[in-house]
Amino acid sequence: MAPADLNPDDELLFADDTPEPGRKRPRLVQPWRMLVVDDEPDVHRVTRMVLSDFSFEGRPLEILSAYSGAEARLLLSQSNDIAVILLDVVMETDDAGLTLVRQIRQDLRNENVRIVLRTGQPGMAPEQTVIVEYDINDYKSKAELTAQKLFTTIVAALRSYRDLVAIEQGRKGLEKVLEASTSLFELRSTDAFLAGILDQINALLDAEGGSILCTAGDELPGSDPTAVVRAAAGRFADLAGKRLAEIPHPTIVHEIVSAFARGSNQYLDDHCAVFFKASGEVRSVAFIEATRPLSPLDHRLVDLFCAKASIAYDNVLLQEHLGLAQEATVFALARLAEFKDPTTGDHLHRVELMTNKIALEMQRRGLALGELDDVLVKKIGLASILHDVGKVGVPDNILCKAGGLNETEWLTMRRHASLGAEILQTASRRLRGRTFLSIGAEIALGHHEKWNGTGYPRGLKGKDIPLSARIVAVADVFDALTSKRPYKEAWDRQDAIDWIKARVDIDFDPDVVTAFLGVVEG
Amino acid sequence: MAPADLNPDDELLFADDTPEPGRKRPRLVQPWRMLVVDDEPDVHRVTRMVLSDFSFEGRPLEILSAYSGAEARLLLSQSNDIAVILLDVVMETDDAGLTLVRQIRQDLRNENVRIVLRTGQPGMAPEQTVIVEYDINDYKSKAELTAQKLFTTIVAALRSYRDLVAIEQGRKGLEKVLEASTSLFELRSTDAFLAGILDQINALLDAEGGSILCTAGDELPGSDPTAVVRAAAGRFADLAGKRLAEIPHPTIVHEIVSAFARGSNQYLDDHCAVFFKASGEVRSVAFIEATRPLSPLDHRLVDLFCAKASIAYDNVLLQEHLGLAQEATVFALARLAEFKDPTTGDHLHRVELMTNKIALEMQRRGLALGELDDVLVKKIGLASILHDVGKVGVPDNILCKAGGLNETEWLTMRRHASLGAEILQTASRRLRGRTFLSIGAEIALGHHEKWNGTGYPRGLKGKDIPLSARIVAVADVFDALTSKRPYKEAWDRQDAIDWIKARVDIDFDPDVVTAFLGVVEG
Repeated sequence: MAPADLNPDDELLFADDTPEPGRKRPRLVQPWRMLVVDDEPDVHRVTRMVLSDFSFEGRPLEILSAYSGAEARLLLSQSNDIAVILLDVVMETDDAGLTLVRQIRQDLRNENVRIVLRTGQPGMAPEQTVIVEYDINDYKSKAELTAQKLFTTIVAALRSYRDLVAIEQGRKGLEKVLEASTSLFELRSTDAFLAGILDQINALLDAEGGSILCTAGDELPGSDPTAVVRAAAGRFADLAGKRLAEIPHPTIVHEIVSAFARGSNQYLDDHCAVFFKASGEVRSVAFIEATRPLSPLDHRLVDLFCAKASIAYDNVLLQEHLGLAQEATVFALARLAEFKDPTTGDHLHRVELMTNKIALEMQRRGLALGELDDVLVKKIGLASILHDVGKVGVPDNILCKAGGLNETEWLTMRRHASLGAEILQTASRRLRGRTFLSIGAEIALGHHEKWNGTGYPRGLKGKDIPLSARIVAVADVFDALTSKRPYKEAWDRQDAIDWIKARVDIDFDPDVVTAFLGVVEG
Repeated sequence: MAPADLNPDDELLFADDTPEPGRKRPRLVQPWRMLVVDDEPDVHRVTRMVLSDFSFEGRPLEILSAYSGAEARLLLSQSNDIAVILLDVVMETDDAGLTLVRQIRQDLRNENVRIVLRTGQPGMAPEQTVIVEYDINDYKSKAELTAQKLFTTIVAALRSYRDLVAIEQGRKGLEKVLEASTSLFELRSTDAFLAGILDQINALLDAEGGSILCTAGDELPGSDPTAVVRAAAGRFADLAGKRLAEIPHPTIVHEIVSAFARGSNQYLDDHCAVFFKASGEVRSVAFIEATRPLSPLDHRLVDLFCAKASIAYDNVLLQEHLGLAQEATVFALARLAEFKDPTTGDHLHRVELMTNKIALEMQRRGLALGELDDVLVKKIGLASILHDVGKVGVPDNILCKAGGLNETEWLTMRRHASLGAEILQTASRRLRGRTFLSIGAEIALGHHEKWNGTGYPRGLKGKDIPLSARIVAVADVFDALTSKRPYKEAWDRQDAIDWIKARVDIDFDPDVVTAFLGVVEG
């Protein structure tokens, strides 16, 4: 194919290289659609002839024909973009046209199409009765409908249709914004939220091109103080996580930087850059490639959505912040309890991680059905951190003793399990439902129980030990074995795994160990 | 006045007794409003005569008259409920009517009123040009406008106006729902949220009667497991806080109980009972007295609002739960640190309360401007609980020593301030901005400093001591003085106040003491 044969737009569209925004796409001129319903072929012919040059607001007229009420009904049930109907009354029956009017409004629930009744036998459908009783928009006898009057009638009908459609589009857009903005409030993490923002703007604009969302000033852990791509979709999906400066599309980077500087939304023909902020210094810009020209209504709806999204953004940041503060407080609590036992190091973090992994693996494998629910999976990690808080009640001289403990000291040391449970139970007393504090109490009490009933403090057996404690028992022992302690070297990882395997049914729940092996052996 | 002269509705309306719902109110029939604009008085006269019996969809026609374009414009700028204009072209100028069309659409931005151009001199306003160039809805020469045609034209115009207004009302209603439902997400406590629900439903329905919101199954502290009035407005305002059974309106109680049982919304002519739930077992019913008949659109909008409100309800419960869990964890943290010092009892709670009160009082009085911001006021109470966590690092033998401490022991004991600060600073490291943990660190470090520079650990003076620590110093000392301790009796409240007064400028910040006195002396 010679280069001259290529439509330059096609060329850009199919080129390997990623096109930059700002390029104009050709716009199709959508004709107005009119349906002529009449059983006399001549009426169709004359109507087409008279209106052959018709155009209103730059759009031509496309005329469809139906020769009976039944045919018209079928056609109307298949297309919802017909603007005007020129409708005869007497066709297959004396009132076929009037019957069709009721079907259109009541059965098809089409309230937008403008219906002009055009009758050759006014006697069959007296004007005064018909205009009041049927939901039609004009009544003409064929005799009065000169070419000029037909023109006027159709312009008036199209204008009315245009107004109705415009308001209705506004209403539908608002419905979408309402749906979109409330759905944002169901997202509980910033990452899900920011991806949700992109999804929703794309949906609002029917956009399926590429989109990028950058955030700046958000100093949550894991993010960067300078602008970073926090979400991306479509052809830009692989940019997620990159810094703004690393985006390999200079004009897009420029648009995003401008939007940050401007602090407001900008709409161009085929893309937009949308700015929104949460309280404080957290600001984001979403860059969206449109797949159709953006209308003033699109602008208004996206503006409105951004205002609502800012409130949702605050909300999700607040929740995330509360969650982080909670985790920090729990760590402080756990560390405080072991303040005089500085050997534990990152033990708590590692136990939390392993506990989470085992619980997820059990869920994935469908183990411990009936015991393992979503709440437990979500909270067990945080709760596991607290398994040894009871050590606060063990006297310094026993906790810090260098040599082995005698029988009495050992009994005192063992009290840490029930002591921890008591502390956490007290703390959770004012809270509703299962919380990480009440689960933590279960774990504190039960993490030294053994599957065969030889553990402490209560000597519980098998499934009488809460699942949470059975999971933490494995995670805690595995980490203790593989860590260096004053009284022992760190075991080799495989030796520790083998030891845990060997203690199945003695110390440990076989299902928990199955999940544990799934985690450590991949 | 004889009883027979009283309108029975007026009587009910002004009666002292509270009317029960279900009573019908008389409905006014709103006429359609049409404006005739013509400089010939005869045209007005004939139009009124021809249309004297006009009625469409049970509503009569009210005809307004204007005799020039200018007069019509004035009239239109004052009322926005005119449905149709019959508009002459040639009046004060040859194109006064056409000029008015542009003014209506462009200046007054009235896109709903249907404009029927009615000209006696078609030559001055050629039909083909005018219908295309001006945003009018019909064009008639006076010659063709028979009584029948006038009737048809006006019915068609009113129908079109009715449709536009209906869709637009739907759009405006959606805007309100969008506004209402997002505003709910800005409320951070359940109480504010539930009051917000009532406000927003009342606003949606333009209701200004009485409204009641009951919640059941919400076992947050302070609420009751059986249904309780959590919010109330209008003539029911004084029912807030009562149990459902205590509402002195049996039929209303019955409606609310039915709504709980049914789990869905019910609309009656002059009131509605609206049900919504959060996840879990928290369910609410709002009973609203309407002040106008409720339309199907009202029902749809309230239904939609309820769906959104349920999401917001979950959200606020989650936040409240996170906040309570946080407080519980902080208490556990503080208690843990003082585990071996069981004398403190409710000391922490009382210090938290007093700290909050002093901070609020300082804010109210405009004291410590520039130091006291909203974040500090909000978080200082929670932070104050942590002032002594550093005691965890003090050896048992010093912390629990019955007699007085020697010099060396005292030095060790004093280390709890910097130790606590270190623990809390570490915990807050991963969090953004000022949190209760970082403020807690300030307080832990500074609460034994004295205004004159003789405190510890750093011997800071005056405003070099963080405000948070200056406030907690007063709250902590006041509670210690008025509490019984192993080594002292509880002081008399007034003696403790006098002692604090006496230590102004020595131990304490005079502004803090001013606020403290405001709190304790009322």
